[in-house]
Amino acid sequence: MNALEKLERSIKKNNSLVCVGLDPEIAKLPEQFKNSNTPQFDFNRAIIDATHDLVCAYKPNPAFYEARGADGIRELKMTCDYIRETYPDIFLILDLKRADIGNTSCGSAEFGFDYLGADAVTLNPYLGSDALAPYLERADKASFILCRTSNAGSGEIQDLLVDGVPLYQKIALKIATEWNKNKNCGLVAGATYPTELATVRHLAGDLPILTPGIGGQGGSVEAILKAGLTPQKTGLIINSSRSIIFAGSGKDFAEKARSAALELRKEIHNFC
Amino acid sequence: MNALEKLERSIKKNNSLVCVGLDPEIAKLPEQFKNSNTPQFDFNRAIIDATHDLVCAYKPNPAFYEARGADGIRELKMTCDYIRETYPDIFLILDLKRADIGNTSCGSAEFGFDYLGADAVTLNPYLGSDALAPYLERADKASFILCRTSNAGSGEIQDLLVDGVPLYQKIALKIATEWNKNKNCGLVAGATYPTELATVRHLAGDLPILTPGIGGQGGSVEAILKAGLTPQKTGLIINSSRSIIFAGSGKDFAEKARSAALELRKEIHNFC
Repeated sequence: MNALEKLERSIKKNNSLVCVGLDPEIAKLPEQFKNSNTPQFDFNRAIIDATHDLVCAYKPNPAFYEARGADGIRELKMTCDYIRETYPDIFLILDLKRADIGNTSCGSAEFGFDYLGADAVTLNPYLGSDALAPYLERADKASFILCRTSNAGSGEIQDLLVDGVPLYQKIALKIATEWNKNKNCGLVAGATYPTELATVRHLAGDLPILTPGIGGQGGSVEAILKAGLTPQKTGLIINSSRSIIFAGSGKDFAEKARSAALELRKEIHNFC
Repeated sequence: MNALEKLERSIKKNNSLVCVGLDPEIAKLPEQFKNSNTPQFDFNRAIIDATHDLVCAYKPNPAFYEARGADGIRELKMTCDYIRETYPDIFLILDLKRADIGNTSCGSAEFGFDYLGADAVTLNPYLGSDALAPYLERADKASFILCRTSNAGSGEIQDLLVDGVPLYQKIALKIATEWNKNKNCGLVAGATYPTELATVRHLAGDLPILTPGIGGQGGSVEAILKAGLTPQKTGLIINSSRSIIFAGSGKDFAEKARSAALELRKEIHNFC
């Protein structure tokens, strides 16, 4: 079973397109974790236990862990190990957004795929496909490549016209027709830009699209489902981070996170 | 003193444009480090002690450390601390090649600038300048943004024509005229492409350019000096990693590294 088959199975098992972003910014953790030796892991474990039957994927972003240096990286590993060992069917995406020169990319591919054991990573296309080879060559793993990101200024570079076509569309087409030799590519298109997401879906065929930007960043569920689902009503991974993990800040933060995840899954089911 | 002034002072003090890439790939370390508890740090310290009077900067790339997880990150920090405490005049560039959405970039800016205490980081322009704000707003620190990278396939995306102009040139111009509000930007242009480096120099005015790709990747010193120096014969940081740190593999690896750094500095002095 390759990684994208695992994703599809996870979507079916929990009947969910919801991905929870495990971005435990240390200053935002509930009071009860302030004196923990492993605050980010303890918080994540509670979130995971409260939501594991409602999601298709978890997506930790290493930046929130590396801000605490080696201690944070250790807790990122504890988090990834916990997911793999306790809920092995759930898809695990490491939000690396990386690209580097050949032998250097090997290092971060090792970090994401081997040390942390993620099923997938996110990558940045700017360096070209040879720079992504150490990830793309891992046929057992998947890579989601940034096309149109969810930030307000994403159009500054990504909408520049190349032969009359926005750059992000050129890249979406490259991913779908050239970079996907091992049938292990997905794309990233922000929920804050449904029109662009629809174009990415058109160019990408049935490839999975990771769409962050729901909730905290303001994307609309209805709009992105209309724009991004495949004809089989699947193929979207809808990520929410802060709106779920920080839905509450008191002792009931985990129940609040569960409610928020349930709510998002229900909203998705209203439209598909 | 801002970070780019520190760089200029470091170049003058050691009369050197040489930057050593501290990329201690674990499988390539000399035998004597195999049983060390902190192999990457021990190796780096020996390289640093042997070359500190010959370089303007050190440039560790986190990928080579994170491949070993939390242990590697700890040794990356030990390395950065050692440089700052023992040779505080030397410029320290963390080769992050990163970009992310606003609050996430804060995490990796904290990692690079605060936890590791680097003077500068490298960044990827694809997400646009708002994604880079947490780095660019640090007026006390510098950011070197990728324009034309040294890998064989860098042209696949970076040479796409935007209004008849290659994308990397559009980005070089943006950096120089829009993104450099805090006078803390530099650019990255690979030594493997002297013609493109010359164009980047033309567009970037006197901004510093980090140029990797000498040695292992095949760039020529004479060609890049002609292409990339400012009229004041400065403004280039010429990075070599493997050709210096792995110049030898035996007990005399540090002396061999010193000889290789001396040789590169001498070669540079032959032409400027």
